[in-house]
Amino acid sequence: MADDNAVLTLRRILDGRWAAMRDRVRDELGTADWATPIEPLSITDYRARTTRQLLALLREDWTETGLSAQRGNRGDVGASLTFFETLAHVDLSLFVKFGVQIGLFGGAIAGLGTQWHHSAYLPRIERGDLLGCFAMTETGGGSDVANLRTTATYDPETDMIVVHTPTAAATKDYIGNAARDGTMAAVFAQLIVDGESHGVHCVLVPIRDSRGVARRGVTLRDCGPKMGLPGVDNGEIVFDHVRVPRANLLDRFGAIDDDGVYESVIDNDARRFFSMLGTLVRGRVSVGAAAGAATRNGLTLAIRYAVRRRQFLRPPNGDAAGLPDAHAAGIRLIDYATHRRRLLVPLARSYALALATNMLIEDLHALEQDQAKAESAGTGQVDAAEIDEERVRRIEERAASLKIANTDHATRTIQTCREACGGAGYIWENRFGALKNDTDVFTTFEGDNTVLLQLVAKGLLTRYRDSFQSFDTAAMIRFAARNVAETVVERAFGGTIIQRLMAGAPGRDADNALAERGGQLAMFEDRDEHTLAGLAARMRARADDFKVDPVGVLDDVQPHMLAAAWAHIDRILLEAFASATEECEDGACRELLGSLCDLFVYSTVETNAAWFLEHGRISAAQSKEVTRRVDELCAELAPQAEALVGAFGIADAWLDCPLLERA
Amino acid sequence: MADDNAVLTLRRILDGRWAAMRDRVRDELGTADWATPIEPLSITDYRARTTRQLLALLREDWTETGLSAQRGNRGDVGASLTFFETLAHVDLSLFVKFGVQIGLFGGAIAGLGTQWHHSAYLPRIERGDLLGCFAMTETGGGSDVANLRTTATYDPETDMIVVHTPTAAATKDYIGNAARDGTMAAVFAQLIVDGESHGVHCVLVPIRDSRGVARRGVTLRDCGPKMGLPGVDNGEIVFDHVRVPRANLLDRFGAIDDDGVYESVIDNDARRFFSMLGTLVRGRVSVGAAAGAATRNGLTLAIRYAVRRRQFLRPPNGDAAGLPDAHAAGIRLIDYATHRRRLLVPLARSYALALATNMLIEDLHALEQDQAKAESAGTGQVDAAEIDEERVRRIEERAASLKIANTDHATRTIQTCREACGGAGYIWENRFGALKNDTDVFTTFEGDNTVLLQLVAKGLLTRYRDSFQSFDTAAMIRFAARNVAETVVERAFGGTIIQRLMAGAPGRDADNALAERGGQLAMFEDRDEHTLAGLAARMRARADDFKVDPVGVLDDVQPHMLAAAWAHIDRILLEAFASATEECEDGACRELLGSLCDLFVYSTVETNAAWFLEHGRISAAQSKEVTRRVDELCAELAPQAEALVGAFGIADAWLDCPLLERA
Repeated sequence: MADDNAVLTLRRILDGRWAAMRDRVRDELGTADWATPIEPLSITDYRARTTRQLLALLREDWTETGLSAQRGNRGDVGASLTFFETLAHVDLSLFVKFGVQIGLFGGAIAGLGTQWHHSAYLPRIERGDLLGCFAMTETGGGSDVANLRTTATYDPETDMIVVHTPTAAATKDYIGNAARDGTMAAVFAQLIVDGESHGVHCVLVPIRDSRGVARRGVTLRDCGPKMGLPGVDNGEIVFDHVRVPRANLLDRFGAIDDDGVYESVIDNDARRFFSMLGTLVRGRVSVGAAAGAATRNGLTLAIRYAVRRRQFLRPPNGDAAGLPDAHAAGIRLIDYATHRRRLLVPLARSYALALATNMLIEDLHALEQDQAKAESAGTGQVDAAEIDEERVRRIEERAASLKIANTDHATRTIQTCREACGGAGYIWENRFGALKNDTDVFTTFEGDNTVLLQLVAKGLLTRYRDSFQSFDTAAMIRFAARNVAETVVERAFGGTIIQRLMAGAPGRDADNALAERGGQLAMFEDRDEHTLAGLAARMRARADDFKVDPVGVLDDVQPHMLAAAWAHIDRILLEAFASATEECEDGACRELLGSLCDLFVYSTVETNAAWFLEHGRISAAQSKEVTRRVDELCAELAPQAEALVGAFGIADAWLDCPLLERA
Repeated sequence: MADDNAVLTLRRILDGRWAAMRDRVRDELGTADWATPIEPLSITDYRARTTRQLLALLREDWTETGLSAQRGNRGDVGASLTFFETLAHVDLSLFVKFGVQIGLFGGAIAGLGTQWHHSAYLPRIERGDLLGCFAMTETGGGSDVANLRTTATYDPETDMIVVHTPTAAATKDYIGNAARDGTMAAVFAQLIVDGESHGVHCVLVPIRDSRGVARRGVTLRDCGPKMGLPGVDNGEIVFDHVRVPRANLLDRFGAIDDDGVYESVIDNDARRFFSMLGTLVRGRVSVGAAAGAATRNGLTLAIRYAVRRRQFLRPPNGDAAGLPDAHAAGIRLIDYATHRRRLLVPLARSYALALATNMLIEDLHALEQDQAKAESAGTGQVDAAEIDEERVRRIEERAASLKIANTDHATRTIQTCREACGGAGYIWENRFGALKNDTDVFTTFEGDNTVLLQLVAKGLLTRYRDSFQSFDTAAMIRFAARNVAETVVERAFGGTIIQRLMAGAPGRDADNALAERGGQLAMFEDRDEHTLAGLAARMRARADDFKVDPVGVLDDVQPHMLAAAWAHIDRILLEAFASATEECEDGACRELLGSLCDLFVYSTVETNAAWFLEHGRISAAQSKEVTRRVDELCAELAPQAEALVGAFGIADAWLDCPLLERA
């Protein structure tokens, strides 16, 4: 049994660098008033509750939200992202509502605007005096953000920008804050100056007056009930030639000067747009982190239930005959091999995800601090030199990877947790309904996972921003034809520690490669690199066909892109888990983390056994042994299961429900 | 492209023997009044709507519900089950509400009662004059039905039976019809006569008076909101020494005679109880069939969306540069390799499930007709000779198998369909919310899937009813120690056709085994038998350890039971699919079904590739080829996708929603 010290140590490790922020949220928001209610509310009531909560948060001193009106100060980005993540344990409507206001709307102005916009808007946004929308997605193409159809046309006669929705497909759709509360929208549109389009830019457009009435030329429609997130007022926005001052263009990456001439330090439209998107990376990090947090809520409930609930009578000395005794003790669910496997395998992955997410947030924090320093010496418009492209690219790639990994894991795991609680899990008051329904859309928003997987694969293939950092697979394939050797993947997390672990270990070809951490790392790295090399080779081989049959070639390449991205994701998760384990100084805790990391490794190899077998990486006998080890590790870890979820540090009020009384 | 004739032929095949019933439901219930509403209703309103719909159905001439007051007439069982299945396309709350009233409550009286009960209750139940509950599940042990804690004690003084809830764990829980409408409950309880328990029996207990007030000694509690099924009024029931006449015991399998002595033709308590459960097999068939129907609703929506919706611009001659045109056509979702794979692989399995479910219903219909004939010559209490144990056992095993397979498929596939419709799928009015939430509990009820998988495995291991047909793994392991050779699995569906296909084909060891239907069948059969033989061997090997470490042995055996059951399920699905394909007389239609069956085969081998590789059934090269074939078949079938879902024949009103307008 893990001793209390080990659990405390575990918790410190999971809480990470911004533990104080987690504690503050637990302390101040750890009440039923803040937690998701266990009785369903009407949409009207839920929206009112969430808006009230949002405003209460904004009134309090949670100010290190990462927005700042001062150049060279981005606030405490890490604390801000940790706050977002912890909020996801509390209530997911509130998390999204807060995220729309501060992360997306405020973030667009902070990241894409310049000093004037910062001073004019950020303080009001942080105080909650100005509630806004992030109007990117359109009805006609959710994921195809480079080809948005909304237009923002500069009119030199009046020095105004005319924002317009040319077709029904260009309607801004599913926009948070649009149905009820938002008075301004950050609208993404094709910027047209002097008849020439310069690609997607962001323009601030007032959409409601102070009485809540839609402004002239703006049509607002409520998206109505959704599967989940009842507290978020999603809506549609249509613009009919709405005029706003030129100053409303967020002009950090591209501006219209006083002579009505477009200017930008980045020549290429696509590249500029993806630079803009890059500044919004926090949103993707947050959605991943929130999905991870919600999953930990589900696992904590299901594991506590499994430890308490007894099902079927324990056979007395192998003989189950005789009358059932109404008070006889049954076998605990956690003591069934299949039941504990269902819960502990995802638990191990949740640890990997939580640790990797912490590391990503630390790296993003450091990057933004460095960028802020560079900015404070700059001019206002972006200075190309201030962006270390390679560093930015790697963080974006990991943000996408962890968004995919966390949200995919959430959807599958929360479902498993519901089923593991049987009929009790189906009753609304036991929280799985809200957890499932609220997280369901996370696989879709901030980038649909299937689209993001391809983006990750493209990002891995090359370091050249021009070619990879768009959704343009065509350009990628042409690029791959010229430059295919460059498929060496950099280490994502835990550089020197991982290096050291691998140096002393048997190679991936050794029979006992999986027995040591270094060998495990070598195997995961090998799968990543081999899959990626295969993708590159395939792209090169098909490059000539591309002119005659582009769709056919995309078809052929797409499944390999997904496989390469998943291989990479598993690898970076292991690197995070392995380095956190290795860094742990408490012996008992390190041992426990080590076993859990082993479970992550063996279960991941088991899930991908076909690949390892097909490519001769493991033998048939080894593959069977992997399954045996998963079962063995689950049995070994079962007595620690409650301690392992206890270390998540989820406040009682956020999990309070009658579930355990029924166990 | 499939021609219209082929589609009509396909539809005839899927509609099956009771096509007329399906057409009648489409015709009479094919309106928005009957379909799941696309705006969420309050629980109060939804319950009122569902009760109103139930009573309307019962008033109409849908009388071939399979209940009959006359001995020797069980009604048209097949038509009744087909009606249930088709109802699941309409609204799942109504399906469950109807199922509780007719299938479970009425079914308990029909199956477990004798002539007096039939005459007294069945006509009133069929007319909706008496609404009732099926009170089996208890708070303390959902799946452990043999060890229910509620007691029914015979009191010879008053010739009454005293029904009592001895502990909180014995509370009847999640009982449909209990919170609002039910006036009587069929209560499963340990029957105690003269101080001796005779195991679980069923007793009719009035729970509400005509004004809807709980009767004396009965405490009713509303379970409140659930994740889904808002129209079903689930509740808890607690009995405090409630007295009912002796005649209220459903006494087909066990009775108390006029002298107050217990009598039964089946000596063994457990065997008698599982004989009782066997008569309730229709419920399990219905839940599986309903899950299959709901999944087809989801697939139809998602595939129609994928055919219409365009995303990302089609690269013009391999060059994606230039301004996006607001009206340019993008690539259809169905034309993306990964997207169509996500939808077409589950579509192939849905076909397999639908065809297997039809065959199961035909077999159950035939069995019940034969049993009814035997009954009409009998006495009232069960005649041991009237049950062909082997035939009954095989149907029960397949009912459990298809319940597992259909419900597991539903949960995964409807989720995939939601994600495949992106943000639009998340909006409530587009139906995925209700589909997901309503079907979610199907993996749990009428037997939790994990428990049922073990039941299937036990059932496969032996023909001896005493040993297998309980949840008693202990007895099973003791049995396996003595009798391990008998692991030959009988053919489930399509006997002679399958025989013929296999006779002319390459064996499973041939390099091209998967290229022909016979070879495919041989490979699936081999996996089934090999997995089962492994389980039997493991049980035998561990039998001696069982006395000292029963829980450890159960642990060791349980994962293998699940693997064996899944292997069996895949095999019977293929047998159903292959025989239906082979029987199809229309050439174009046979070819289409054949390709879809191939997709089912290759995708199932792909999912289980690790097993086939570990056991040397396929080589690494063959395994890669399997993946390639899945992609190839998906590409080949994509142009037929709409026709393939069109053949499901789902009425427009049941799918009506704004989803396709947004495509």
